[in-house]
Amino acid sequence: MFFASDNWAGVHPDISANLSRHAAGIATAYGDGDLDRAVYRRFSEIFERDVEVFFVATGTAANALSMASMNRIGGIALCHSEAHMNVDEFGAMGFYSGGARMAPVPGPLGRMSPQALDKAIKRYSQDLAPAGQPMAVTITQATEVGTVYTVDDINAIAEVSRRHKLPLHMDGARFANAIAATEVTPAEMTWKSGVDLISFGGTKNGCWMADAVVIFNPEVGRDLRLLRQRAGQTFSKARFISAQFEAYFTDDLWLRMARHANATAAHLAETIEDAPAGRLAWLPQANEVFAILDRAVAEKLQAAGAKFYEWGVPLGFDGHLGDNEAIYRFVASFATTTGEVDRLGALLAG
Amino acid sequence: MFFASDNWAGVHPDISANLSRHAAGIATAYGDGDLDRAVYRRFSEIFERDVEVFFVATGTAANALSMASMNRIGGIALCHSEAHMNVDEFGAMGFYSGGARMAPVPGPLGRMSPQALDKAIKRYSQDLAPAGQPMAVTITQATEVGTVYTVDDINAIAEVSRRHKLPLHMDGARFANAIAATEVTPAEMTWKSGVDLISFGGTKNGCWMADAVVIFNPEVGRDLRLLRQRAGQTFSKARFISAQFEAYFTDDLWLRMARHANATAAHLAETIEDAPAGRLAWLPQANEVFAILDRAVAEKLQAAGAKFYEWGVPLGFDGHLGDNEAIYRFVASFATTTGEVDRLGALLAG
Amino acid sequence: MFFASDNWAGVHPDISANLSRHAAGIATAYGDGDLDRAVYRRFSEIFERDVEVFFVATGTAANALSMASMNRIGGIALCHSEAHMNVDEFGAMGFYSGGARMAPVPGPLGRMSPQALDKAIKRYSQDLAPAGQPMAVTITQATEVGTVYTVDDINAIAEVSRRHKLPLHMDGARFANAIAATEVTPAEMTWKSGVDLISFGGTKNGCWMADAVVIFNPEVGRDLRLLRQRAGQTFSKARFISAQFEAYFTDDLWLRMARHANATAAHLAETIEDAPAGRLAWLPQANEVFAILDRAVAEKLQAAGAKFYEWGVPLGFDGHLGDNEAIYRFVASFATTTGEVDRLGALLAG
Amino acid sequence: MFFASDNWAGVHPDISANLSRHAAGIATAYGDGDLDRAVYRRFSEIFERDVEVFFVATGTAANALSMASMNRIGGIALCHSEAHMNVDEFGAMGFYSGGARMAPVPGPLGRMSPQALDKAIKRYSQDLAPAGQPMAVTITQATEVGTVYTVDDINAIAEVSRRHKLPLHMDGARFANAIAATEVTPAEMTWKSGVDLISFGGTKNGCWMADAVVIFNPEVGRDLRLLRQRAGQTFSKARFISAQFEAYFTDDLWLRMARHANATAAHLAETIEDAPAGRLAWLPQANEVFAILDRAVAEKLQAAGAKFYEWGVPLGFDGHLGDNEAIYRFVASFATTTGEVDRLGALLAG
Repeated sequence: MFFASDNWAGVHPDISANLSRHAAGIATAYGDGDLDRAVYRRFSEIFERDVEVFFVATGTAANALSMASMNRIGGIALCHSEAHMNVDEFGAMGFYSGGARMAPVPGPLGRMSPQALDKAIKRYSQDLAPAGQPMAVTITQATEVGTVYTVDDINAIAEVSRRHKLPLHMDGARFANAIAATEVTPAEMTWKSGVDLISFGGTKNGCWMADAVVIFNPEVGRDLRLLRQRAGQTFSKARFISAQFEAYFTDDLWLRMARHANATAAHLAETIEDAPAGRLAWLPQANEVFAILDRAVAEKLQAAGAKFYEWGVPLGFDGHLGDNEAIYRFVASFATTTGEVDRLGALLAG
Repeated sequence: MFFASDNWAGVHPDISANLSRHAAGIATAYGDGDLDRAVYRRFSEIFERDVEVFFVATGTAANALSMASMNRIGGIALCHSEAHMNVDEFGAMGFYSGGARMAPVPGPLGRMSPQALDKAIKRYSQDLAPAGQPMAVTITQATEVGTVYTVDDINAIAEVSRRHKLPLHMDGARFANAIAATEVTPAEMTWKSGVDLISFGGTKNGCWMADAVVIFNPEVGRDLRLLRQRAGQTFSKARFISAQFEAYFTDDLWLRMARHANATAAHLAETIEDAPAGRLAWLPQANEVFAILDRAVAEKLQAAGAKFYEWGVPLGFDGHLGDNEAIYRFVASFATTTGEVDRLGALLAG
Repeated sequence: MFFASDNWAGVHPDISANLSRHAAGIATAYGDGDLDRAVYRRFSEIFERDVEVFFVATGTAANALSMASMNRIGGIALCHSEAHMNVDEFGAMGFYSGGARMAPVPGPLGRMSPQALDKAIKRYSQDLAPAGQPMAVTITQATEVGTVYTVDDINAIAEVSRRHKLPLHMDGARFANAIAATEVTPAEMTWKSGVDLISFGGTKNGCWMADAVVIFNPEVGRDLRLLRQRAGQTFSKARFISAQFEAYFTDDLWLRMARHANATAAHLAETIEDAPAGRLAWLPQANEVFAILDRAVAEKLQAAGAKFYEWGVPLGFDGHLGDNEAIYRFVASFATTTGEVDRLGALLAG
Repeated sequence: MFFASDNWAGVHPDISANLSRHAAGIATAYGDGDLDRAVYRRFSEIFERDVEVFFVATGTAANALSMASMNRIGGIALCHSEAHMNVDEFGAMGFYSGGARMAPVPGPLGRMSPQALDKAIKRYSQDLAPAGQPMAVTITQATEVGTVYTVDDINAIAEVSRRHKLPLHMDGARFANAIAATEVTPAEMTWKSGVDLISFGGTKNGCWMADAVVIFNPEVGRDLRLLRQRAGQTFSKARFISAQFEAYFTDDLWLRMARHANATAAHLAETIEDAPAGRLAWLPQANEVFAILDRAVAEKLQAAGAKFYEWGVPLGFDGHLGDNEAIYRFVASFATTTGEVDRLGALLAG
């Protein structure tokens, strides 16, 4: 009953096998080998346009390097108040950009409000005594609270960004889950809706370590190659990332894994809704389920071996929390089984 | 009718005369001359304890270097949402600290709420996936909207800071005005109420350029000397700052200037309250007056030569703004005359 | 005939197999799983003392984070003029440390001279108008030009460092090759000779991506965990590095691979010495061979498919270079075969 | 007998008087007042072309902000081995540029050799495994050892810089002394010889605190205004710097002060040459004299009240130093008197 995080899982056997397949042989280093270039082309096919791909160490590094590539003097990146970059990445963005910062923008259930975005940009860039220079807008897809932006939502945010001449970044640590949830194409979810670059994450969805910055708009992120080099993240044997992505994209493995995680989360959500001892905090849309449980119930589940964490009450939460109740997060991964969910359900029912 | 800012004024004649008096002669450079050391001792007398004094280039530099001296990896400084450091200093704090950042804390009329401070510190330092490390709390005295913290207010904030083991900084760009408004001693306003270091500003109050970081708690800000040197702000002929402060403190000149500015602001506030065409946005406590005027009235005043700026609506404003009304800021300095206020009053009455 | 770099090779089959073995199953993320902890203990055994181990993205990141962990305001790290950190790492050290810098120290054939080190430290830390604060000494083992420091060499440098109260870092990107060359123990080569922390590299010696900072002296590098987190290099599925190191240390695989590389390099050196068309630039001691070839000969070899690069003339080179001659670098890895060397030999002989 | 530094002197009475003259009255803040704009125009006249002028806190800040304005990722600035920026500014350049660094270039007696410059640029920018990106060349005029570049010298360095597409910066902390020594025009010494921007110092030559970055080439240093703002050096009452420069340029005061300092230094040089107990280390060309004295003689002078410092032996020194001899620096300022020199001479003779 491992629901603590999707990064507690291992890797899919196909990915492991592909790493073994590419273990031998000689290849040009630093991401310029044959396999590397084939994988870059595969990204272009997936996104239906020429893209630039930069492998990086982690999702946090992908976000921070993306921001650094759009950096301005006194730079301000607009993000949702609960964005991972704002509340979970230990100042990486400020460090990578030499002091740029995030300005939090509110919005219900993890989704930035276009109106609030417009207001925040105006506030921080007023003529007199400015806070700095707005430099970018960033959204997370799927969001930190398990919800998903629709293509219309993204277009509305992109419209505000464009009006203020700001590039739009997507933190796609769980991009596969968002695609699986909406069944729009990767192109529609990103550049066709105004996204200029994405932190594309495979690590939470069945890879060992496969994170990349993918650039759609060639006007944006021009310095990424050099920023990555200065950051010590130009991998010599880049094949070990390429081999993972090669398998990831083969026969839609990435979407199959994400669909499994989403479906398992949906089953978990139903299980919780059906249980007398719990209820959903809000409707899950991807692979994360937020439930309201009595603290005593949560402790009983944990004592029985279920792994999951308490979560803070997000902005825009309009439900009711009883005195002894709290919100708990349950995450399903490619490896989570129906059996695990059902065991949790049995405990909840008991 | 110059109410645009207290930094549009020149310098007091006593300060100018003292600069002339010290123009000739040879002195050890880099702040180690006889006059420099005498002025440092004067600061210790003013604050009734041994302090360390570091002259710096501007109030922004004083704030940014103060923060840098308390820097932690992934550092987060808690400040009021409308703190000058947060909305007016072009990212200086992030730059000087290599990527630390500010977390805005709400509170009515420019004053941080101790409860909100406690909540914000807890939020940013939670165990799982932290945003970074809280490193300092900073408050502005007098505040950005012309209000003043009482000694009790400061003690309440210091109590929260201390509980979380965070040093407390005061942005004292208008410290003299706060002292003049409350008539507590500098010691009571600062270290006796739990303040560890202050950005002490003389520039807005009748000096040419006289800003310093003053350290009360010897455990805090140990690296300030080296940080300042690396920042290129160790002045060779530091006498030119010492000479200003020498005159500033002689015969309470600093308080006489601040009392004049505050009294002139109070007269301005009454004038506005009495005028049919305007009203106070809130009660001023130091040398800044915020008034609600019809935009047409404001334009008429400006057309007649009055200098002042429109201001954003601050958090916690519970007054009413008509459709064509806005909030305007009027600042009185040591050099503002009753005549200027009365001419403005006549225009308002007309 | 791949002699361009040891990072063109793939991974050893044992390492690949171990990755597959650990692909399934659930583990605590962020380097706190059972396998991770077992591997940290293995490092302590290898080095015969309690050590702290931090996995990082690359050797450059290991160096830069090591330096950042010893950072001082206005910091200066003393390194050999030809240190990888000085001439090949694109400013990573300056970036990670927020502006610290390297002061190059001369010494023949890649080895820092203790006397020159002493002189440089004194020069940069003189009282009047200092350049900054010396903060660390770093040496590379095996060196950038294929030579090796003896334990006595290291002790002499450590003695100077200690006298100036500076920690001593070792860039061990080819540490295994140095151990294989000297057959002293890892403990003797490092902390027993005064080394405080090491960038421990497995990537060039048969791993996919396995780099770590290993700390011997608990007084040094205390902030490394947080610096790494802020740098976005706290890997969620750290198992994929642990699994590599587990196999790397099993049955001395790491030393077997390094011995093979060194022996192949020695065979290559003999082959070159025996060839009429080339000669050694200096005596190789690890897995890199530097040869003087006529440019026409080098081009002929390259045309026949041999991969290797021209190299700059290092400080302290006291040999003779003819008008059409240059220095070329040949690197042997765990995967380089005797056959490759012999084919090169045949071409040289022809 | 104050020869320790030209920054131990006070300010010229004309400058002091002008500050008093501008003490009263209201002016637009932040360098946009009438006097400020008049002084910017005066700079354009002095340099016979449109220039941009940015007042900054110190000479170190002028240098560091200049470098930051030409910053590149992994940036490398080429400077003379003994450049003030390299050995006396406590890492300010690295800090202001977020990690860029200096590459020292040799050359006799404080002057960079164009050939060595060319070689260093090539070395640091080689294709394979680069150290970073060369970003600028900087020279000091007058140099750190009291010598002066001729216009031909500057042109030769500018030619190398231009060939590598690098902007050329001049550290002009003692620019007035160089102009006074050569009697070429400020325009000939700078942009007509290929200099793109200069740190223009008035502080060492009779001002209180008057340093500026002056930009000749509008393609260079575009971000200086914002970099200065982020660095907290946008002075609110910029008049206090403008008033100094206004007097500085009136009736050639700046050149009259520099000529006096140079002439006094020349008199000091003759005095030393004539004394049996000392000799010149090399021929002085501006206001700094470097003498070889027996240590016992130096101590006798210091005991008698003469202020001066021992100096390190510079690169390219081809004189002879006896066992008990050292090199000492004597600096003459606008305020140094012939009487002081003669008293020193009498002591030396005695």
